[in-house]
Amino acid sequence: MCQLLGMNCNTPTDICFSFTGFQARGGLTDHHRDGWGIAFYDGNGVRIFLDAQATIDSPIAALVRHYPIRSKNVIAHIRKATRGAIGLENTHPFQRELWGRYWIFAHNGHLRDFAPDFDGSFLPVGATDSERAFCYILQSLRMQFPQGEPDADSLYQALRALAGELGAYGEFNFLLADGLRLYAHCASRLAYIVRQAPFGVAHLKDQDLSVDFKEVTTPDDRVAVIATIPLTDDEPWQQIDRGTLLAFKDGQAVHYDDMKTGAGCEPGCSLEAVA
Amino acid sequence: MCQLLGMNCNTPTDICFSFTGFQARGGLTDHHRDGWGIAFYDGNGVRIFLDAQATIDSPIAALVRHYPIRSKNVIAHIRKATRGAIGLENTHPFQRELWGRYWIFAHNGHLRDFAPDFDGSFLPVGATDSERAFCYILQSLRMQFPQGEPDADSLYQALRALAGELGAYGEFNFLLADGLRLYAHCASRLAYIVRQAPFGVAHLKDQDLSVDFKEVTTPDDRVAVIATIPLTDDEPWQQIDRGTLLAFKDGQAVHYDDMKTGAGCEPGCSLEAVA
Repeated sequence: MCQLLGMNCNTPTDICFSFTGFQARGGLTDHHRDGWGIAFYDGNGVRIFLDAQATIDSPIAALVRHYPIRSKNVIAHIRKATRGAIGLENTHPFQRELWGRYWIFAHNGHLRDFAPDFDGSFLPVGATDSERAFCYILQSLRMQFPQGEPDADSLYQALRALAGELGAYGEFNFLLADGLRLYAHCASRLAYIVRQAPFGVAHLKDQDLSVDFKEVTTPDDRVAVIATIPLTDDEPWQQIDRGTLLAFKDGQAVHYDDMKTGAGCEPGCSLEAVA
Repeated sequence: MCQLLGMNCNTPTDICFSFTGFQARGGLTDHHRDGWGIAFYDGNGVRIFLDAQATIDSPIAALVRHYPIRSKNVIAHIRKATRGAIGLENTHPFQRELWGRYWIFAHNGHLRDFAPDFDGSFLPVGATDSERAFCYILQSLRMQFPQGEPDADSLYQALRALAGELGAYGEFNFLLADGLRLYAHCASRLAYIVRQAPFGVAHLKDQDLSVDFKEVTTPDDRVAVIATIPLTDDEPWQQIDRGTLLAFKDGQAVHYDDMKTGAGCEPGCSLEAVA
């Protein structure tokens, strides 16, 4: 099993604090040692750092922790290999281009016997069920909207239907971004917090480290952080309901009338415990 | 104008020495300050580092210089912005997936009035003529080989024809890789060297640094390094003929009967001097 971390903000923000706690789970406080990756949008561009080593041993992770890369949309993943060998081609997040935008995807869970027909527009490079799911989502979107990028509501509805369709194959927690929005689907375990004024102090669960957000923000900043398991032990993280797809924009969850995908797992559905 | 660096080897090799000299051209010994990037294949996976800063100021470049990432195919680029603003989405190398492989591309030169029709299969994210050329090449390959990846000879012939077609729009020096081979097209300026046993000492042009390759190689190693301008001042670099497409595999240029693309620029064709 793997762990997910996402961030969506209304102003470019660094993720050093959250990544410090997240990184500790890659071999120090937890056993996700089979690679990690993090993607940062910067305008329409994307910068991805991938490493098949455990985060805790990785000089690239040390760089990411210490070098403040500011971004409005970030997706990170640490991997415990269950499907597909350890290797860079199987390391999340994955990247593809659709409609002249880079899309980024990371998955936590398993899809059993998911072997869709591919038309060649997006093909997996590695051997994970996760990359297959990502390619299938993009192929389906392109097929459904042949004229190009639809409006935000239509895109959300299409993604919700796809999350439901693929969730029928197993546990499908994922983070997906197109540079405009960050989508978070909870099948079994995913939580988030929105930090905004008045900002306070927060303390990491996985490292003895606190930050006073008052000192590093302006009153207009708003930052949503999404994680498999809450990263701090003194903030009111909100569990996302199972079978729900949230769309984040400008640091908050955009609400739709019906956010249910029908792909929530029953408690205990995980093949392996998350933590 | 920009500078290109490529490496193709028969065994995974680090590029720390060559990158040290190349990096100096990004703001220290030369004026290519508008971003840089480097892509390393690792099996079928790819790891790309991109930065819109000058290499010489970049903590990410410092990491790449000091942390030996071993790879059989590497493409790097430093940018002097001439088309498209400074920004991550305009930073080379570019990446796309075709036939279940990652393709990497970097370009030096200008294509004037190159505005092809895109069918939506590969769309530029940024605003460079280079990314447009890359998308057009991949779209053309997919169209030409609808059954999927052709044999190496057919692929080479198709790329040679495309290099000729696009080279008619201007100066089209490029490096392109699919993880199996590295293609190098010289329109105006590109040189290479093959290092193999007996290995000797080499000294960088741009930094006072030497390496004794005997100490860091085995007798079977073979490494081809390709660069806009030779990186060392005491090795027999070979200029690639203008209007020639070379395909490198296992550290050597694969020879074809006819490597001419018809897209060699006359001496002095550059809009700006390369160095």
